[in-house]
Amino acid sequence: MRNIRLNVEYDGTRYQGWQRQKNTHATLQETIEEVLARVLQERVKLIGSGRTDAGVHALAQVANFKTSCGIALNKLKQALNSLLPKDIVVTGAKEVDLKFHSRFSAKSKTYRYTILNRKYPSAIRRNSAYFLPCKLHFKSMQKAARILLGRHDFRSFQASDKRERGSVRRIEKIRLFKEGDFIFIDIRANAFVYKMARNIVGTLVEIGRRNEPPENMRKILTSRNRKFAGPTVPGRGLCLLRVRY
Amino acid sequence: MRNIRLNVEYDGTRYQGWQRQKNTHATLQETIEEVLARVLQERVKLIGSGRTDAGVHALAQVANFKTSCGIALNKLKQALNSLLPKDIVVTGAKEVDLKFHSRFSAKSKTYRYTILNRKYPSAIRRNSAYFLPCKLHFKSMQKAARILLGRHDFRSFQASDKRERGSVRRIEKIRLFKEGDFIFIDIRANAFVYKMARNIVGTLVEIGRRNEPPENMRKILTSRNRKFAGPTVPGRGLCLLRVRY
Repeated sequence: MRNIRLNVEYDGTRYQGWQRQKNTHATLQETIEEVLARVLQERVKLIGSGRTDAGVHALAQVANFKTSCGIALNKLKQALNSLLPKDIVVTGAKEVDLKFHSRFSAKSKTYRYTILNRKYPSAIRRNSAYFLPCKLHFKSMQKAARILLGRHDFRSFQASDKRERGSVRRIEKIRLFKEGDFIFIDIRANAFVYKMARNIVGTLVEIGRRNEPPENMRKILTSRNRKFAGPTVPGRGLCLLRVRY
Repeated sequence: MRNIRLNVEYDGTRYQGWQRQKNTHATLQETIEEVLARVLQERVKLIGSGRTDAGVHALAQVANFKTSCGIALNKLKQALNSLLPKDIVVTGAKEVDLKFHSRFSAKSKTYRYTILNRKYPSAIRRNSAYFLPCKLHFKSMQKAARILLGRHDFRSFQASDKRERGSVRRIEKIRLFKEGDFIFIDIRANAFVYKMARNIVGTLVEIGRRNEPPENMRKILTSRNRKFAGPTVPGRGLCLLRVRY
């Protein structure tokens, strides 16, 4: 038995997220699993490092599967890319230890959220940025973001419909920067509770819009109550940049 | 009568280019003219600064039209953006002198060509970069590009099926730079002969692939013969960045 790790880039626009679902075929997991079945001549289960939601993109999602097929890695990569739709590309394939698990072995993940902050939308970035025409106080957002660094209970930023066992996570890096009309928010954490990145960005946007002091972010964080945090921003602005092992 | 100038951003992927055509409705000119007719309640002719080809994008195409409609510019912009498909955005509208002509008044245009130079394609940039997996000698390309600076007869880079009256143009700036796996080629010229930007890039690619000396570019330029230049690279890598007046 071999354990094969793939690096996958995708444009999530056409998909209902990573995870296979009963009511749609348009998921990344199902699309890639179907192509894997054709190439390997056996059905495999593809384990992603995390479930990205509908519309969310990835520059380097990591996924692994176990197979008894002896195909060479280069051939596998070529075959997958020739059969996959053009909005999914396998950028790397390697054989890893049988104990490797894309999700459980991950040490950290980095997401980038992109906001387009100007008076009119963008045609070219319409599916890969969140258009926000209102004035945002960038400095307030930066200060508020710093409060989140380190190990905390992120329950305030956890989707209220999906409660996992624990909500303590460690944010290792959070960086806001501007380029032209774009604001980028990079967050690296050991793991993310469900919708954590998008709920943090939604809260930063509220703080930036009202020019609130960073103290407000501390209150929201320590409340451990989802209703004090901001709204969930759209998936299209989010991109999984990197997973470290 | 008013003369109104629009700045337009578009993702050209779905379109057969700027210019209205008999055999398709999928042109930028027709799409925008149809929406203008609804908003202004009169048919107008939209003059673009230049005809971008199928698949070519624009960050700031400039177009103008004449109308007797008294609509406020802000309202016009809002109305257009709410009726246009999301891959076309009017980023500016202003009233200009009746003598202003998007094409004839233009002093220079800047195009950017984007090459993705790595072993595997990109999912996210699949429609906005030309994927080239072969090794390219970047320095040779930079040196060859410099030969093109200034006023020359660019007949070697003119599409052989479309002969305009003259083919003397002035390249004011040509800059190649790298960012990660991407190579960007920015060209500013007083005007471009048909397919000039894409034929220049195709020639630079040939020179980079074979590590040719810049002297070869001079030979191609002075030959004034299309058959010595490289192939036309795909439209999807090209974007009209700016038009100066």
